[in-house]
Amino acid sequence: MTVREQALRAREASRTLGSAIRSAKDAGLQSMADALLKAETVILEANAADVRRAEDAGTGAALIDRLRLTPDRIAGMADGLRALADLPDPVGDVVRGWTNPNGVQVRQVRVPFGVVGIIYEARPNVTADAAGICLKSGNAVLLRGSSSAADSNAAIVTALRAGLAEAELPEDSVQLIPGPREVTGELMAARGLVDVLIPRGGAGLIETVVTQSQVPVIETGTGNCHLYVDRSADHDQAIRIMINAKAQRPSVCNALETLLVHADVADSFVPKALQALAEAGVTVHGDDRFASYGDQVVPVTETDYAEEFLSLDLAAAVVDSLDDALAHIRRYSSGHSETIVTDSQAAANRFVAEVDAAAVLVNASSRFVDGGEFGFGAEIGISTQKLHARGPMGLPEMTSTKYVVTGAGQVRG
Amino acid sequence: MTVREQALRAREASRTLGSAIRSAKDAGLQSMADALLKAETVILEANAADVRRAEDAGTGAALIDRLRLTPDRIAGMADGLRALADLPDPVGDVVRGWTNPNGVQVRQVRVPFGVVGIIYEARPNVTADAAGICLKSGNAVLLRGSSSAADSNAAIVTALRAGLAEAELPEDSVQLIPGPREVTGELMAARGLVDVLIPRGGAGLIETVVTQSQVPVIETGTGNCHLYVDRSADHDQAIRIMINAKAQRPSVCNALETLLVHADVADSFVPKALQALAEAGVTVHGDDRFASYGDQVVPVTETDYAEEFLSLDLAAAVVDSLDDALAHIRRYSSGHSETIVTDSQAAANRFVAEVDAAAVLVNASSRFVDGGEFGFGAEIGISTQKLHARGPMGLPEMTSTKYVVTGAGQVRG
Repeated sequence: MTVREQALRAREASRTLGSAIRSAKDAGLQSMADALLKAETVILEANAADVRRAEDAGTGAALIDRLRLTPDRIAGMADGLRALADLPDPVGDVVRGWTNPNGVQVRQVRVPFGVVGIIYEARPNVTADAAGICLKSGNAVLLRGSSSAADSNAAIVTALRAGLAEAELPEDSVQLIPGPREVTGELMAARGLVDVLIPRGGAGLIETVVTQSQVPVIETGTGNCHLYVDRSADHDQAIRIMINAKAQRPSVCNALETLLVHADVADSFVPKALQALAEAGVTVHGDDRFASYGDQVVPVTETDYAEEFLSLDLAAAVVDSLDDALAHIRRYSSGHSETIVTDSQAAANRFVAEVDAAAVLVNASSRFVDGGEFGFGAEIGISTQKLHARGPMGLPEMTSTKYVVTGAGQVRG
Repeated sequence: MTVREQALRAREASRTLGSAIRSAKDAGLQSMADALLKAETVILEANAADVRRAEDAGTGAALIDRLRLTPDRIAGMADGLRALADLPDPVGDVVRGWTNPNGVQVRQVRVPFGVVGIIYEARPNVTADAAGICLKSGNAVLLRGSSSAADSNAAIVTALRAGLAEAELPEDSVQLIPGPREVTGELMAARGLVDVLIPRGGAGLIETVVTQSQVPVIETGTGNCHLYVDRSADHDQAIRIMINAKAQRPSVCNALETLLVHADVADSFVPKALQALAEAGVTVHGDDRFASYGDQVVPVTETDYAEEFLSLDLAAAVVDSLDDALAHIRRYSSGHSETIVTDSQAAANRFVAEVDAAAVLVNASSRFVDGGEFGFGAEIGISTQKLHARGPMGLPEMTSTKYVVTGAGQVRG
């Protein structure tokens, strides 16, 4: 089947999903969870084949760990689907409404997009997560996973579709797009059939989709996040936030990548920071002024400033002012999450107003910028673009709206 | 100056605009209005040159009328800018906010996009309208007008920039992009410098921008709008709505293009409809069943169904059921505004739920789908896409949001 044919089937399924009531969708999610658990053996066998292929290809241990499924991880996917069933349904929400002077009533109501395409890498649990979020928000989904997880994804999608059929929802609500690399191009060209594409993965994947897709894209992910320690910062607070943002989970997009310290407090703050970073196992890539505080600091490069480490590495520099910190952030930020630690109301206000990012934090860890931490219950990703959704995307962000205009024969004068 | 250089200047200006308070922006709008009136003679001379060129090129009277400026039209532009000053400022609005269990406060706040590009055809008044809407919403704007209005647009932008300077706002908040056709390509490639592109014009222009742009696009405009007269419709209401939607202003995107009549009421409704349409000067392009009611009906073609007339022409067909009407609309609709006239609650509910469009109307004219009629005060266009904004776009739709997260040293556990 071509991508076009799959997209047409998805459109057809989306018509049913679009007017499905919440209880029908929730029953579908429960049924998909049951089906995943029932298919555990088949899914684990398929996953073992993927893992074997990856090992034969010499894939690194970290990637293999992300690829590998266990009974626990399958149970986790099922739990995720059941948790979605407990969340409110965004579809049908009246965003706003009013009555015009002539008595015409206008309501803006949330409706599903229709067909969503997800292009993602490695981790097969994304298959179930994304399918669940799309179903709950009334969207049919086309899943384009990585070839390294092809067998796992196929087994998971077969189970999810069986669950949908069991709940009398269209199986084509969830489809995997198999095939070679070119197929991704066909998906990106399916304007009019696919309503939105969401790439989830590394910077390279996202750049490709963003520049090549004719289908509208929601850009997620890359987080080159900064922490600016202002001259009025509480040092204990700054160190606690720095260590949490850098070391609690270095591989994620809301982790800290660059530390900027105001020159006035460098003498007192940087030695303490270096000690805490060393204890947390962090390698510091510092500018000359930063390096003057410790032998363990390696020289920072332009690339260190410009890209995410996603590891226990941290770029660091001493800046002469808030203005210099703002200029550095303006130059290198990917617009994800930027933090200031300060006791100055004026400095906090300027930072919040002038930093152009999905999230700006004052005296809190950037690790809080997350759908779960925000209480969204589910998250499809963190948008770093300005259109449609910016920051953590929950269920409402997976919908569009429609104006419903009701009258009694009114016409325009 | 290259497009890239202009975009960099716009970015710089957008930093000032982004934190400009409402009273500063409103003063800028008043000052721009004053400057337009002061430059009346210069603008009219420039416009006369454009009109002469268009006449020499054999341009049709309708287009020349759209191109032509008069003292009244210039006063209209100035009034439009002053009206914007009276509207609330969307920037700074708190969309939602909450406090997490750990005391971390989260607020989602409206912020400007940054730099907006507008690509538009013919009418020079769009230059002032778009500049005003962008300024009020805190965005710098790059205006790419049509070459036929080059002199008019240049004179208008010169005046607007003088007004900005007078109000001590950055002149580069409003820039015209001159030059040959290729320049539009440079604008569409300026991803990262331009935050959003909005094409305003015919279907061809919009298709080009939507398929070629690497900058995110908000699609506006084409409206292939249908009116379905259900079997339970009040005939007087249906005729009033039909004539208003078709004939009040046929050249606009929310005008009616195709009439569908339920077979059960065709005998009683169609003859009355044909009489009313004839009185309004409308040419009816009907299918065989529709044509059987009157000699004046010309045969409808596939193109008549598929494209906007934007004139006193109307495609028309008799359908056997609500299902057939929905299928016709699904096939040909551009997703702008679709109307049902019915007294049946069930039919209205199905129509509202199943029609996939920016606006769905029950017993009211599609001419109401308009920022002015919706009470938005200003409108940059009517979005027919599902991402970010759908339907009439006012000032809030010209903004993005930012999460502001405030703590007292909290870290993630």
